[in-house]
Amino acid sequence: MSTADTASLVTFRQARRADLARIVALIADDAVAAGRTGTFGPAHVAGFEAIEASPNDELVVAELDGEVVGVMQLTFIPGIARNGATRLHVEAVRVDARLRGQGVGRRLMEHAHARGRERGCALAQLTSDKQRPEAHRFYRSLGYAQSHEGFKLAL
Amino acid sequence: MSTADTASLVTFRQARRADLARIVALIADDAVAAGRTGTFGPAHVAGFEAIEASPNDELVVAELDGEVVGVMQLTFIPGIARNGATRLHVEAVRVDARLRGQGVGRRLMEHAHARGRERGCALAQLTSDKQRPEAHRFYRSLGYAQSHEGFKLAL
Repeated sequence: MSTADTASLVTFRQARRADLARIVALIADDAVAAGRTGTFGPAHVAGFEAIEASPNDELVVAELDGEVVGVMQLTFIPGIARNGATRLHVEAVRVDARLRGQGVGRRLMEHAHARGRERGCALAQLTSDKQRPEAHRFYRSLGYAQSHEGFKLAL
Repeated sequence: MSTADTASLVTFRQARRADLARIVALIADDAVAAGRTGTFGPAHVAGFEAIEASPNDELVVAELDGEVVGVMQLTFIPGIARNGATRLHVEAVRVDARLRGQGVGRRLMEHAHARGRERGCALAQLTSDKQRPEAHRFYRSLGYAQSHEGFKLAL
């Protein structure tokens, strides 16, 4: 199957509880995140239930031939800054390692942006670990400005 | 009044509708944000109402002698990554220019972290424009790791 075919055959839907073990495996299948994702367990279930309960959060999966091959979390953040703009905040973007470089990530992000527009967002934002230069190139290729420094603190 | 006195006298509370014009002025009083905040108007009111309607968003003001002297927005983001951690996401942190360097920002952030812990957050995160090196030093001084690149895209 050609690259174009693969990406065009991917579909998107809200994640279901039955997808969760696969989602955790996708998020953990990454040199940067492996150590901090944990093995699938109650903490992930609680996180999933909190996303389902939130009116401003969505967990989206990409599906190909009935298999989950990508995931991302969308948060719609209302605000005062930037003339009262609602922001589309994107976390935990992953594509199955076997499918990388075939345009699936690009379609995933296009879907994110479409959902953001549907929710009235004026701006999309995300951060990417400084250890991921390939991801940075990918986001720049989508038109993102690499304009901010990202800070994290354990509480 | 000494610096320590000023910071110790600041109190924190949820923003009210009557604070909004002052909040917009605080957010706009900044070389980086001035051009994009807009003058106080219906878009800011709509943003305020959306924050009030959200169970996972809070707009917090710092008050000194009955005057609003600081603001920040907190979003509690549930998630699957990082072992199902809830994130405290901080936006639009501002302190009155007349009070900068007196520890008010530090107390504002400590209040943010306390609220995050109350909501079960394992992690605090924020981004800061690359044009704000003083802000970056400030966040590093609070223990934040400057570990990520921050990307923005107009939708």
